[in-house]
Amino acid sequence: MSCEAHINALFHPQTVAVIGASEKPGKIGHTVVANMIEAGFPGRIIPVNPKADEILGLPVVGDVADLPEDLDLAVVTIPVAAVLPAMETLAAKKLKSAIVITAGFKEVGGEGYYLEKRLAELCRENDIALIGPNCLGMISTPSKINASFAAGQPGEGKIAFFSQSGALCVAILDWALKENIGFSRFVSLGNKAVISESQMLAFLRQDQHTNVILGYIENVENGTAFLAEAARVTREKPVIMIKSGTTAAGAKAASSHTGAIAGSDQAYTAAFKKTGIIRAGDVETLFNLAQAFATQPLPEGPGLVLVTNSGGPGILAADACEKSSLSMARMSLTTVERLKEFLPPYASLYNPVDIIGDADAERYRKTLEAVLDDPQVHAALVLLSPTSSAHIEETAQAVIDNARQTSKPVFACFMGGVRVEPGRRMLLDAGIPCYAFPEPAIKSIESMYAYSLWKKTPEAHYPAIFGNADAAREVFDAVRGRGDLEVVEFQAQEVLRA
Amino acid sequence: MSCEAHINALFHPQTVAVIGASEKPGKIGHTVVANMIEAGFPGRIIPVNPKADEILGLPVVGDVADLPEDLDLAVVTIPVAAVLPAMETLAAKKLKSAIVITAGFKEVGGEGYYLEKRLAELCRENDIALIGPNCLGMISTPSKINASFAAGQPGEGKIAFFSQSGALCVAILDWALKENIGFSRFVSLGNKAVISESQMLAFLRQDQHTNVILGYIENVENGTAFLAEAARVTREKPVIMIKSGTTAAGAKAASSHTGAIAGSDQAYTAAFKKTGIIRAGDVETLFNLAQAFATQPLPEGPGLVLVTNSGGPGILAADACEKSSLSMARMSLTTVERLKEFLPPYASLYNPVDIIGDADAERYRKTLEAVLDDPQVHAALVLLSPTSSAHIEETAQAVIDNARQTSKPVFACFMGGVRVEPGRRMLLDAGIPCYAFPEPAIKSIESMYAYSLWKKTPEAHYPAIFGNADAAREVFDAVRGRGDLEVVEFQAQEVLRA
Repeated sequence: MSCEAHINALFHPQTVAVIGASEKPGKIGHTVVANMIEAGFPGRIIPVNPKADEILGLPVVGDVADLPEDLDLAVVTIPVAAVLPAMETLAAKKLKSAIVITAGFKEVGGEGYYLEKRLAELCRENDIALIGPNCLGMISTPSKINASFAAGQPGEGKIAFFSQSGALCVAILDWALKENIGFSRFVSLGNKAVISESQMLAFLRQDQHTNVILGYIENVENGTAFLAEAARVTREKPVIMIKSGTTAAGAKAASSHTGAIAGSDQAYTAAFKKTGIIRAGDVETLFNLAQAFATQPLPEGPGLVLVTNSGGPGILAADACEKSSLSMARMSLTTVERLKEFLPPYASLYNPVDIIGDADAERYRKTLEAVLDDPQVHAALVLLSPTSSAHIEETAQAVIDNARQTSKPVFACFMGGVRVEPGRRMLLDAGIPCYAFPEPAIKSIESMYAYSLWKKTPEAHYPAIFGNADAAREVFDAVRGRGDLEVVEFQAQEVLRA
Repeated sequence: MSCEAHINALFHPQTVAVIGASEKPGKIGHTVVANMIEAGFPGRIIPVNPKADEILGLPVVGDVADLPEDLDLAVVTIPVAAVLPAMETLAAKKLKSAIVITAGFKEVGGEGYYLEKRLAELCRENDIALIGPNCLGMISTPSKINASFAAGQPGEGKIAFFSQSGALCVAILDWALKENIGFSRFVSLGNKAVISESQMLAFLRQDQHTNVILGYIENVENGTAFLAEAARVTREKPVIMIKSGTTAAGAKAASSHTGAIAGSDQAYTAAFKKTGIIRAGDVETLFNLAQAFATQPLPEGPGLVLVTNSGGPGILAADACEKSSLSMARMSLTTVERLKEFLPPYASLYNPVDIIGDADAERYRKTLEAVLDDPQVHAALVLLSPTSSAHIEETAQAVIDNARQTSKPVFACFMGGVRVEPGRRMLLDAGIPCYAFPEPAIKSIESMYAYSLWKKTPEAHYPAIFGNADAAREVFDAVRGRGDLEVVEFQAQEVLRA
């Protein structure tokens, strides 16, 4: 893809034009300019509008023909019929990258389909890195750019997110504000006319601002490229994805047609597994895993210790641990002796370490210190029930202090609602995942351990997938030849055999 | 159980004595009196303390010997060694019911075991309905009684909850305050010396203040009685339970001993299924199901309609529906024609009904009205993504208004965090379950549909379990004879065969 030369201009532009900027609050062309300003973009923002002189204090250019040469990025929000002519003018001016927010392309079919094809060709011929069309836009916190019409600005962080669904983008942004999660890049891919998830993966693999990659996909345009790139990036960074039923699921649901989806789902599951992509079965898991991977180190073994002020939740957590691929850490005699020194007589010194309902923050602190020192312990989950003697915020602080002094992952589960909320907030702000229930915490730790094993497996098994890349490519080509956007199970199995 | 005659005195007392009431804030004996007062108990509260004259404005009785005859309820918080003598004195005075909060009985083994045995015998001989020992206490909102040392008072509601774990009680109370969920009865069963889950089920079945029964159990003392009672109550009210790994799980986890738990788990699963108990696999599901069953009518069929302002979440929900035992409702031509009248041209008129990203509250309102009128629709899930044009609170109001005018269950999924919170709050306050993700909403509706089917199945299959009650009883007796608290798989299978 020749556009790759300009993908850096897209994420780190000096000058950004907003084609179709508007004076009217509520209009997309207004929100984009407002978001760019609010994000604190240090470069030049040029609103383009034939009727206005000034938008939000910025001088306006009347026509795309009057924009400077070598523009880094154009954000396009004009009506669909005007998009291609504007892009042609900009291409002649050596535009480097564009985000086409405007809808009415492939997704509406008919003329829109051909319009999008021409747009893609234009961009490819002129090396323009294009996001969209039909998208929410893009946010890049390292370059302080919010070229989207989303409500709300995410904070800086090490998570990149790309999504085929703009709605998922806004939902995740809204969630991120609540959970105090920051992002590096946040991209609504839209119709993926030029930049697809494969190019995104390739860019994010080398992106120093990104540690964790999240994606929501409904279909993959180029399966071969996607899997090859995925297998490369998962060696370096975790890739967590939701693959939803694709628009075929909607169609199926409406028409009661059966068959294709389940097979396709299994094929994706197999392909993801082979390439080391972590598949989140639902949005909640995507959220949980994002938080876990972005904030905690990977566990170096399966040994989990549970520290709890109550038996019931400890048992629930032990149940969840038993059902997972983690194991309940067996602590050394030294650790047990150390715990015995300060824990009350009825405490359970083994795992779960039950430090009893009247545990104060200090007891949590010393217990955590002791168990995290144990070499058999690779991860810790701290459970707190809001008993009448629980010190919720002080315990949160004890967990934070211990987490800062260890290289092992530390998770918390503060069970309840109103009373535990201040402690939960403190933990989240300090980058410690805190759940309301033990089960999702353990699922997150399990996923991190599985990924740590994946990183250690020899790379050899990647070429095994594409041992015969030509055979695999043939399958994909045949699928594309029929105009299908989905690879169904038998085809995926052919690919895996190849 | 002779204590059953007095279980009503326990939940609806006129006079309550707090044995071991204390002047000192922070002491359990103080918190219980404070909780009783705060709950607005209209009867007489008598604090018992040899040293104080007045506690929280109430005149104090110095000794249990000075308490009146025929006392309805004694809440006992004195040291373990003093419990039995006090209870003997009270038994002679024809005490009707007691809650022994004090710990140090069976759970500590040795002398505690025999102490508890004597306490239980004393209560049984004197028809005293006893909760505990070693518990958090009990809350009964219809009688404005909070005889517990929990922090926080729950509101009135139709959900009863009983739990073997006091910590689960406080966690659930705390959650209930956040989600605005009320309770009828809230019972920490503790060591279950006299009143077990079986007696609780029997009481709650006939309790007019209770519509939904929740329970957390680690083990069942009398499996036969429990299953028989459960099969009876589930015909009338939903019973949702968590069965955790029992204390053996903790032991197992510590000792790496294997075997018993998994089998036992399967036996419970089979037994629950046979008796119509809805088993929640984790606390989050227990919470979700409690809310769903307590607030929404049962769906009369499997047909679910999805109304959404965004494609991606609609597809995720359709995926979840396909994986469940629900089906995507196929709406009639009349409904589709009706939708066509006011929905924009790009809207999807089928299911999921995608009313497009710029949907305002009015469009949600009219769409919901139309789809809820369709006889093929048995339940509705309203999905909202916080797009820049979403009317979050107005949409919540439209959902509330529609839910009030229909006899079908209506659920909401407002995806995100900060921006959707006010709408979510409105929905919860109006008794409409609102989730942050589509999957748990669909799981809740699925559970409600399964329960509606259960209620319609002929009762005949209950006697099938206990076709040979004596054989079943023999198995349980043999288990108890060995002092085991767990029925393991082969034994459960014998019971099921009997």
